[in-house]
Parts: sequence; structure tokens; C-alpha cells
Amino acid sequence: MKAIKDSVHDYITLDPVAVDLLDTDAVQRLRHIKQLSTVRLVYPSANHTRFEHSLGVYHLASRSLDSLGVEDDRARHVRAAALIHDVGHGPYGHQTEKVIERHTGKHHDEVGELLGRTDVGDVLTDHGLDAEYVAALVRGERELGQLVSGELDVDRMDYLVRDAHHTGVPYGTIDHERLVRELRYSDGTLVLAEGNVRTAESLLLARALMDATVYRHHVSRIAGAMLERASERLIDEGTDVETFRRMADHDLLVALREHVPELGRRIEYRNLYKRAVWAELADVPTDVVELDHEAERRAEREIADLADVADRQVVVDVPGRPAFTEAGSRVVVNGVPQRLEDASELVSGLRAAQRAGWRMGVYAPAEHVDEVAAAAEQVLGVRVADP
Amino acid sequence: MKAIKDSVHDYITLDPVAVDLLDTDAVQRLRHIKQLSTVRLVYPSANHTRFEHSLGVYHLASRSLDSLGVEDDRARHVRAAALIHDVGHGPYGHQTEKVIERHTGKHHDEVGELLGRTDVGDVLTDHGLDAEYVAALVRGERELGQLVSGELDVDRMDYLVRDAHHTGVPYGTIDHERLVRELRYSDGTLVLAEGNVRTAESLLLARALMDATVYRHHVSRIAGAMLERASERLIDEGTDVETFRRMADHDLLVALREHVPELGRRIEYRNLYKRAVWAELADVPTDVVELDHEAERRAEREIADLADVADRQVVVDVPGRPAFTEAGSRVVVNGVPQRLEDASELVSGLRAAQRAGWRMGVYAPAEHVDEVAAAAEQVLGVRVADP
Amino acid sequence: MKAIKDSVHDYITLDPVAVDLLDTDAVQRLRHIKQLSTVRLVYPSANHTRFEHSLGVYHLASRSLDSLGVEDDRARHVRAAALIHDVGHGPYGHQTEKVIERHTGKHHDEVGELLGRTDVGDVLTDHGLDAEYVAALVRGERELGQLVSGELDVDRMDYLVRDAHHTGVPYGTIDHERLVRELRYSDGTLVLAEGNVRTAESLLLARALMDATVYRHHVSRIAGAMLERASERLIDEGTDVETFRRMADHDLLVALREHVPELGRRIEYRNLYKRAVWAELADVPTDVVELDHEAERRAEREIADLADVADRQVVVDVPGRPAFTEAGSRVVVNGVPQRLEDASELVSGLRAAQRAGWRMGVYAPAEHVDEVAAAAEQVLGVRVADP
Amino acid sequence: MKAIKDSVHDYITLDPVAVDLLDTDAVQRLRHIKQLSTVRLVYPSANHTRFEHSLGVYHLASRSLDSLGVEDDRARHVRAAALIHDVGHGPYGHQTEKVIERHTGKHHDEVGELLGRTDVGDVLTDHGLDAEYVAALVRGERELGQLVSGELDVDRMDYLVRDAHHTGVPYGTIDHERLVRELRYSDGTLVLAEGNVRTAESLLLARALMDATVYRHHVSRIAGAMLERASERLIDEGTDVETFRRMADHDLLVALREHVPELGRRIEYRNLYKRAVWAELADVPTDVVELDHEAERRAEREIADLADVADRQVVVDVPGRPAFTEAGSRVVVNGVPQRLEDASELVSGLRAAQRAGWRMGVYAPAEHVDEVAAAAEQVLGVRVADP
Repeated sequence: MKAIKDSVHDYITLDPVAVDLLDTDAVQRLRHIKQLSTVRLVYPSANHTRFEHSLGVYHLASRSLDSLGVEDDRARHVRAAALIHDVGHGPYGHQTEKVIERHTGKHHDEVGELLGRTDVGDVLTDHGLDAEYVAALVRGERELGQLVSGELDVDRMDYLVRDAHHTGVPYGTIDHERLVRELRYSDGTLVLAEGNVRTAESLLLARALMDATVYRHHVSRIAGAMLERASERLIDEGTDVETFRRMADHDLLVALREHVPELGRRIEYRNLYKRAVWAELADVPTDVVELDHEAERRAEREIADLADVADRQVVVDVPGRPAFTEAGSRVVVNGVPQRLEDASELVSGLRAAQRAGWRMGVYAPAEHVDEVAAAAEQVLGVRVADP
Repeated sequence: MKAIKDSVHDYITLDPVAVDLLDTDAVQRLRHIKQLSTVRLVYPSANHTRFEHSLGVYHLASRSLDSLGVEDDRARHVRAAALIHDVGHGPYGHQTEKVIERHTGKHHDEVGELLGRTDVGDVLTDHGLDAEYVAALVRGERELGQLVSGELDVDRMDYLVRDAHHTGVPYGTIDHERLVRELRYSDGTLVLAEGNVRTAESLLLARALMDATVYRHHVSRIAGAMLERASERLIDEGTDVETFRRMADHDLLVALREHVPELGRRIEYRNLYKRAVWAELADVPTDVVELDHEAERRAEREIADLADVADRQVVVDVPGRPAFTEAGSRVVVNGVPQRLEDASELVSGLRAAQRAGWRMGVYAPAEHVDEVAAAAEQVLGVRVADP
Repeated sequence: MKAIKDSVHDYITLDPVAVDLLDTDAVQRLRHIKQLSTVRLVYPSANHTRFEHSLGVYHLASRSLDSLGVEDDRARHVRAAALIHDVGHGPYGHQTEKVIERHTGKHHDEVGELLGRTDVGDVLTDHGLDAEYVAALVRGERELGQLVSGELDVDRMDYLVRDAHHTGVPYGTIDHERLVRELRYSDGTLVLAEGNVRTAESLLLARALMDATVYRHHVSRIAGAMLERASERLIDEGTDVETFRRMADHDLLVALREHVPELGRRIEYRNLYKRAVWAELADVPTDVVELDHEAERRAEREIADLADVADRQVVVDVPGRPAFTEAGSRVVVNGVPQRLEDASELVSGLRAAQRAGWRMGVYAPAEHVDEVAAAAEQVLGVRVADP
Repeated sequence: MKAIKDSVHDYITLDPVAVDLLDTDAVQRLRHIKQLSTVRLVYPSANHTRFEHSLGVYHLASRSLDSLGVEDDRARHVRAAALIHDVGHGPYGHQTEKVIERHTGKHHDEVGELLGRTDVGDVLTDHGLDAEYVAALVRGERELGQLVSGELDVDRMDYLVRDAHHTGVPYGTIDHERLVRELRYSDGTLVLAEGNVRTAESLLLARALMDATVYRHHVSRIAGAMLERASERLIDEGTDVETFRRMADHDLLVALREHVPELGRRIEYRNLYKRAVWAELADVPTDVVELDHEAERRAEREIADLADVADRQVVVDVPGRPAFTEAGSRVVVNGVPQRLEDASELVSGLRAAQRAGWRMGVYAPAEHVDEVAAAAEQVLGVRVADP
């Protein structure tokens, strides 16, 4: 049996479908897309890619299927779905997700069409797998799709431990083997077995602490927002969105340097904008919290205008209201599956903490921070605190 | 410089006082007292001792003093206090704490008298240290005593990571180096610097998850309760309490086997009682929750009587109401030190979760579980659910 | 499936035989026998026991059987043998091995008779296993016995990684999963598959470096030699050897303190003898290198006499000539199984290095080191270098 | 003090020079050069970069200076040299080293000229450091330069543990803290203190095992050889060598895809040549072992001709005779510094093992392997064994 050495799960044994899927361009491309995009500007060791993450998700899916006793042909489909679940990602993963969605209307887990066009579809067919079913599993549909994408999916389990290993931040180090062993199906819903309220909470807490410390670190957010703006401009200036979408990280870096040189160089050499505004939820008017993309762009122009700086030197970054999908994970309590938010008093506390940690930012080159802050205060009505 | 290799912190460099303290009988005795007493009956690798824990606390105290810039003579006292902070423990650490307190009125961190009587006092004096000051630091008094015993002490930081390393349960893996680096003094109070609400929360969460999964695992609680009962009987049957208090784990195991053979053998060979009752806070009458030791013992006798089993075959185990001292740790928010429970919405959620996880137990030999459960229900008015 | 959390291999899944074997007194006793006996006086975190080591060996045996495709009834016997392979050990494991062999003629892997007399035998019979076959496997006999005891056994694989985890010394961190995956049977002999000369070498090197740094650290050797002398005296003074043999560590510590108080206290509080002589192979006359136990004891008395110190204050410690059993492990090279020493030029180098690291010692209380050194030089003809 | 979180050494504290050096383009560029170039095609998690490696070397240099008691101005120079020691590397590090040397005559540790031309030189000057002295230290000159580049340098210590962490291969996990603590200067030469023959050996062994398993894995060698050929062609076809030399990995990948598309795509999507020949030292004529670059290229053309395949579809890969610089590391034995190869019998064994592991390869597309093998046998006189 072919096996690959992984720094997180040690040897990962591959089934014949996986061996062939690994050789496709679509999966090999994931070697060139970093799992944590701009986070590595904060945590320099965080250079792991979606390729080894995909192997990890494949591995945990296999373990889960074994533990659940799913051995038939469905298991082969689930493993394939786990391995390719990320092939729909654009360059820099989540960081270009919104740009791509705005221009194509497609979400990264919509891999159906992709399977049709790429060598991945051929491999699935050659092994007698149903590409449609695999695509549905990637979208989290069907009973077994919950393993690939859902509140208790193995995607999350892999990325938490992997991101902890590579950043050095310990909070993501969950007990993934316990999670895998305690998965059950209850009337078609994936749940954790009796006695695992704490296990479910631990997943939630790991995610919340990694969010605050790693995934939403302000430096990574600034770089990410700059990258998004630069990507938009790249497309505006003529790069075809389908070409854009199939780029890998290195393609984008080079393309930006060529076509959007000022932002491109700044991202490449970590010469980032600084925070002019960094405001809590309570200090931001409701209509600003709910700003859509177009309005955000308009606000940037107004602020730039007022501050008398060049247009693209102002970035307004308003994250969505804090969501908390893991709160819906299910765990059996006294014989009955319950949503974690009903079973654990911790969830509401976490939700509040998440809200307290929400920040909107306005970023600008270091030398313009003061005038941009003043202009942003006026345009957005945001109360400005010192970052 | 003499250094000792530790499995958690790697090399620990010792100052001259530490070198001599290590050679005292009082500190060497800690090699024979396990850090987690009966927990190793659940997590078999958890055999680490208070000796290496003491070295770890010494190490983190040194790191903290460096980080805080405390370099004068006070630093030598703090390091000494850190190294000896556990010499007051009886055999099996916390498990015999209450027995000893009931018979002597002394808490384990009351090491002053001990310093006078043992070779530890001589070493301190020889090195020009003030034994009284060291004893005060162990009790958590004086400004620097907060480092040794308090809401942000290095004791907790060491045991969380060490217990995680040795049990294999990852929840305790905190970012101790960050905690140490972010310590500050604010008007004489130890606080975490600005930007560390999440860091403070992580400590709290690690503690809460380790509590539920490790420290209060029901099997360890059963063994612990049996050990406490056996220890009481040992003293009742003539073992002098001062002798008892200075025993190490191996002395107690042998003494129990000889003088309280039935319980002694059960503990030694992990042949434990089972849960007859395992009840949530809501199912336990308030007066039972507040039962004192004497009343607990009376209840045991009544239940045994009613169930027609031998007296010592019933153990009633009512833990205190959940406390949460870490909630009082302080962290600077917008320039002002705040208690964590005021700065973080998570704390009340955790408090509620802790309450939800509280359980009282009644334990008995497997073959008497049914009649003891019925009797306990009658005597205590506890609603019995299936464990 | 019942599973136990281990700090080295994470969850270890138990088969029904293992569940019952774990509950026997003979296996529970291993909780009280430390894996590395006196090594913990050098590496204070090394308090792990033969109990969790036995679980680890069970786990690696299961993994190896899976990898080799052995699934039938023989697999159940091998797993049982792996779990109980250490029940024959006396207190402090290898440290009392020679004492016990001298008095009983029995080696610790002779568990046949033990199985007959203890609850372990009953469990095996209840599950339809052949106790004789299990005992043979523990001795390394039969084809599958090589997995339990032999040049490529899983016993060694577990203890190397476990000892590394608990001492903090990284040299033992082998790639055990690779070793397990590359095991094959070739004409009834356990070998490593083609392409694994380096894998086999790595096992050898790990063992050699751990030997030098951990297992034969001079402080551990001194304490071990003192323990052996104390144990002999305990038996000489009337303790029945069968009773001695079934003791656990705590029993021996307490017995020594009572019956051989001077040495007993020294061991308990790490107040050890020092090296009066520490000599390389080249500096020791051949007849001294080959001294048997009786001659060693005679030499001690002569040295004591000459140095004018009390008899038992001199310990002569002459280890056997360096052996190197792993050199005989087999690995397939160009299709043919070869002994590692024939396949790898490294082996002879290691053998020479091992010889260069050999030391004999004479130990005595610190205050008598000089006169004992002089006397030893005269009695043994050893050239004395400064330790 | 500014600190950066690293996955290997945890927090790395930066001095003011380091803070400014990190912000230079020359150092930021190292974020885009992977430490192990093509190794990640074998070990998919090995995506760490020379940026975090440089931080690690900086950290170990600081620790070593502390341990050696070097505190003066020289320490600032050494730390700066450690941080920038790799800025001279071309894209894909060692993999393009020879190409660059052939075209420029410059080795990657020749950073003097580079310092003059880049922002790094300015930072050094601004902080009052002597750029010439820093450049000399990078070349391993002067007494303290041995810390940066030499048999006992911290460069090696960092990459061994870092490569182990990121590949998952444990062999590199040396005891770097012990190495750092045992460094001494003896008459101007860096040595390991008395009692460290084993420590020195462990470094050598770790390096040898990582060589065989990771650094010289045949798949990585094939990809590396293809990359080298492609780079040559890129330069032949007009890319300026100075431009080439300052590329980062992503620049090279994109440039190859554009200008050397066939090889470029193969490298990007891991569609590699296979081994037509894989021969031991004994099977290769001496003149072939000593083939220089020009002769190698001629042989490729001859083989291609004979096999009737396109020129660049044959790659001849003859590594240098095995060298072993660490054998010259010095360790104090009985008070006298000795070269390790004189102090340890292991070295000659390792040297022989290294020689036994030497392989030359001829690579070609999978479909031409047979005819290329036959042609290579004829042209080179190499005895062909099955790979």
C-alpha cells in the first residue's frame, strides 16, 4: 500500500483512487496554494499548503469511516471527496473567495463543473466512481457529506491541528482521534456519542482561540484586504476571471507584481498598510456593519477624497457579523442528540466573546494614517480608538 | 551552571540555592509523590511526580522574573519558594489534603514550620535567604508571592502543560511562554499586559477542560475517595498524623495494605468501587450539597445500614460547589487592569458549564451497587439517574 | 471498543482478552514498576512504568500483525504475549534481574510457571488461549515470537520512543511506524523489506545513543549497583526470594529502608556513592573484565579491608563486555535477507564506539573515595583515571 | 522586546538590528525560498522557508553567544550574520547553486557585494555595524564565524530539527540545546566540552540519516536535476544571470513555465522523469564518477542520440564523492580537543556507509526509460541494476 509521510498524522495510507487523484494537475496545484494565505506574514512557519491538508482530511475521513463501520462503495466516494474537497479554491484560498464569487457567482465548494473539465473527473470515472455524488459530498450534501463539510467535519479537525503544528500556536491542538472515535449517525445526522459535551466544546474553543490569535490576526487581515483589493484591480484591468480562479499562489504574486505593482510589491515584501481605524462593534453604526461590497468601495473613495490621498491607498475592512456554525454540532445527552448550543452553557459565552472580539478596520500607508483616520471618522461615523 | 533535563521545558538551569535545595530530603521526597495521584488509574502514563513539577515551577518562575526584570535578592527568594512550594504536601498530594487539615488544622502551603524543622531551612540560611519570607511567598503573600500562588501563578502554568504531556490529553497545552512574557505588575498586582484577554481566557479554558477530562474523571474520583477513607481509617487505627503527613506515596501504599488491607489492596490493584449514584446539582437537595465531613460519614453509615452492607463499603463523595479562582486573574484592557470575569463574557459561560458538570457520587463494590443506590436515594433524597 | 489514552501512541484499542488481562493483579502490579528504575535519579521526568510500556508493546504488536496480515487465532496469542511480556520482572526491573537469577535460576521472560499460578493463566484459558504458546512467544520462540522478543521486536521500538518522551532525550525517537510497516517474514524469519538498511541502522543508532546517554548514565549505574547490593543483603537477611521477586518498587523501597536502612535511605533520598574508579576497557586487566559475581564480592571485601572502611561501602561494578544483539537484525538487500552487520558498514563502527564507551566503576561514599581508589588500584590492578 | 513565534523554537526575541533587518527586501525575499526545494515533492509538509530558518539560526546564535559569554559588540555582528547568512541564495536554494556558480563564479555565502547593493547594508551601517565583518562571519571567517558556518555551526543545528519537524522524519531531532550549552572556544577553535563525544556523534548521525532519507531521496534528486537543467536552459535562452540569481521560487516557477514549458510544467505538477540508471559506486567507472559539468552534458547528448530521444529528455546526475565535513568537528577528550574522526570509531563506519549509499542516476521520461538505460550503459560503461 502506498503511504505518504505527513508531519501531523505520520504515514497516510492511500487507496488506489487516491494514488491516481494525487497525480492529477488539479490536486498537484494545491501544492502551490498555502493553507493560511497571509497568516504567514505573522507566523513565519505557517507555510503549509492545501495539498498536505487535503491528505490530512483524506486520512481523517478514512479513520472516521472505519470507526463508523462504513466500508462499502460509499466509503470510496467519501475518501475521494475528502481528497479533492479543496480543488475549487482560487489562489490564496479564502482570501480571493469573495472576489471570485462576485465575478462568477460560484463558491469554492462547487466542484461539479470543475470535475467535468479536469483530469479529476477522468480518474473518478476510471475507478467507477460517480463524479456527481463526489461533488455532492464536497458540498456537504447526503448523509455522508456531513463528514466532509458540516459542523463535525474532518476538514476542521485537520486544519486546527495542522495550523497549530505549523504556526506554533498550541490552541488548535484538539483531541482529533477522540472526535473521530466518538462520531455516530443518529437518524441520518452526524453526532458525537454520549459523554462528549466537553469534546464538542473543545472543538469550539479551539476554533475560537485560533480565530482570535491566528486566523483573524490584524496583520493577516490587513495583508488579506490588500490582496483582495489588488486582485480586484487585476481583474478590472483585464485578467480573465476563469484564468484568475485557476492561478496558484505563485502565479498571483507574479501577476500582481506586473500588473498592480505598488500593492503587489507591498504584499511580496510585507510592507503593509497600517490601521487608521480599529473599532469595536459598539463603536460602529449599524449601517456600516452591514455595508455591502459596493458601498465599502464607495466609502473608500470618499475617505481617500477627504483625506486627499490616492484612491487605492484606503482599505475599508468590515467583516461579517460573527457567525458560529459549530454551535450547531450535535452531541448525545441522556440518549438524545442535542445541538451543542442547547447542551452547553459555554456556547452563549463564546458567542458573546466572539462579538466582543469583532473589529472593523480602515487601513492606509503608514504616512497617511492620521488623515485617513480623521476622514474615516467623518465618512463612516465610526468612533475611533487607538489601535 | 548545573542543568537538569526535563521532558517538558528541556534543560532547566539551576542557581546555587537550587542545587543545594535539591539535595535536601524534603525536596527529594517529592520524587515519591505523584503529581496526579489517582489519575494514573485512568491515564496510565500520568506517573510524573511533584519533583519534576517543582523544577518546572522553578524554571517558569526564573523566566517570569527575567521577563519582569526582577533581578535583585528578591528573585533568589522567589526561585527558592517556587522550588519548595510543594514540600508541605502529604502522600498522594491533594488526595490526603483534607484528612491532614482535619487532623492538624494545617494547609499544605503552610511550610513555615516545616522549614524550621528540616534541612531546607538550613540551606536557605546558609545561602543568606530569609526562610520566613520564602514561606510567605509560598503562601502567595507579598507582591512577588502572586507569581508562586495566585490567579496567574506559574504553578498552574507548569502543571497544565506537564499534565497534558504525561496524560496525552492535549487540552492543557497552553502558550506558557506567552503568559510568562506578558506578565506585568500594575500597582503591586500581577496582571497580563494589554491585548491578552484571549491569553487569559485560554488559561481558564485549559483548566476547565482538564478538570472535566482529567482531574475530575469519575474513576480517579472513586479511587481518590477510597484512598481518603482508607487514610482516615489508618489514622483512626493509630498512625500518628505527623508521621502520616510526611509519608510518600510508597509508604502509604504499603501502610494501607498492612493496616487497611481490603481498601489497600483494592487501590493497589485498581479493583475499584462502582458508582451507585451519580447525580447532577439539580437532582441533589441543597442540604446534601452542603454536607460537611461528619455528616457525610453519618450518611455513609446510614446508607450502609439500610443497604445491609458493611460500613466502609459505602463512600459518599460530595465535591464543593464549583469554584473558579482563575476568573479573578487580571488583564489590562484599554489601559486599565480588569478582572477577567469583567473583561470576558466567556467566564460566565464557563462558570455555568462548570456547574452543569458538577456531580455527586455514592460508590460501592460492584456487587452491592443496586441496594446502595436504593438506600442512598432514601437517605439523601437524591434523584438517581443511570451513571 | 475499549480504548486507553497513552502519552506516546495516543488511543490504544483493546481486544477482549486485553481488557480482562489488564484487570489481573499480575498486570496491575506493573503500574508499580518503573520502566527505567534508577534512571529517574538522572532524568527526573522518567517515571513511566512497565504498565504503560506493556500497553505500548501490545499496540505495536497489533499494528505489526495488521501490517503483516496475520489475522487468525495466532494474532490473539501474540497480542496477549505482548501485553504480559513483562510480568516476570522483579522490583526495579532489570536492576534486580541478576539477583533473582542467582537465587532462582529463572530469567524474567520465563513466565510459564507464573501463568500457571496467577490470574493471568485463568484469563487466557477463559478466552480459549493456550498459555503454553503464549509463554513460548514471550520467550521469543516460534515464528511469531520474534515480534515479541528478538532483534526486530516491538518491545524495543516502544521503549525507545517512550524513554525519549519521558526523559526528554531525543535520540530514541525512531520512526516506529515505518519499522512496523516494513516488517516481513522471509522463510520464517522476521526481516525488514528491501530499501531499509537505513531504517535498521536508525534503530541500532537510537539504541546506542540512548545507551550512552540514558541507560548507562554513570549516576544511574551507581544507584543501580547500590540497589543490587542492598537487595542481596535483604535476601541474605531472610527475605524469601519468591516474595522478593513478586515485590513492586514501593515494596522494595520500604523493605530496604527497614532492613538495610543505610543503603535504603541513600537510595530513597538520592544520597549516592561517588566514583572512586572509572576505567576504560584498555585500563582494566582481562581477568577483572571477566570477574564473576562471587569474585566481585570478594574484591569488594578486599578493597574495603585495605581502605579501612566498612565492608558494604565499596561497590565494584564490572559490566559485561559490550554486546550488540541488534547487529543481527535482518534486512532484505537486493532481494536477499542479510544480517545488518553484513549489510551495513556502520555496525562495526558502532561496535567499536560501544567498546570505547565501556567503563568499569568502583563506588564509595564521597568521604572515602580517595582511599578506596588507592585500594582498588592495588587489588584490581586497574589504572585509575580521574572520573 | 519584539518577539516572533516559531514552530520550532517557540518565541524568538529580536534585537533592534534584527527588527530592522527583517524589514529589508533581501530578507523578506527569503519568505519565498523554500528550505528544502524539491524535497517537498516527497514529503509534502516540507514547505518551510529560508526565512524562518534564518530566524532559527539567529535564535541559536543568540543562545550560543549567551552560553559562551560573548556579550560585546561582536555578539551584535554575529547575530546579524546569522540572520542574513542565506540572503545570497538563488531560487530553490542549493538546487541552483551550481548553475549560478558556473555563470558568476560566486558562491551563495559570498554576501559582501550583495550587502553593498541592498538595503541590508544600509541597516547594518545605520546600527553602527561593520558590513565587511558581517560578510566575513557569513563566510565562516574569524573566530566567531565558526558559529555561523563551520563543523559545529548553528545553521546545521537549526535545519536538522526544522527539517525533522516539517517532514515528519524524526532522525533530525538532535539535542540542540545541549550542543549550544556545551560549545567552548579552545585556542580560538570552536569545540564541544569534555564528555561530548556522543553529542558530536549524534549530530553526525542525524545528518547522515537525514541525508539518506530526506536530502538525497531519489525523487527529490530527479526533480532537482530537472530543475537545474531547466534553469540552465532559461539562462541560455537569454535570462540574465543576475536577474536569475535574485529570483525567488515563485519567479522561477513562472519563468520556467513560460520559457522552458515542457520541463517547467513537469516540475510544477510533479510529473517527473524516472530512473533509467541507478548505480552504486562500485558499478561506475572512475572517470564517470569524476565527470565535470561539461562532460556530463556531452554524455547526455550522446545517450539521447543513441537512444533516439530528444536531447533534454536525458539527465545524467553524478553527485560528488561523499564528503563528510562534520567529521572534522572538535570535541575535548581527556582535556585535549580532538577531531571527531580521531575521537570516535563511528566516523569511519559512517563514512563507509555513506559511500555505500552513493548512487549515480540517469533519468528520462517514463516511456523512454528502457532505451535510455541501454544507451547509458553503452556510453558510460555503467553496470545497470534495477532501481
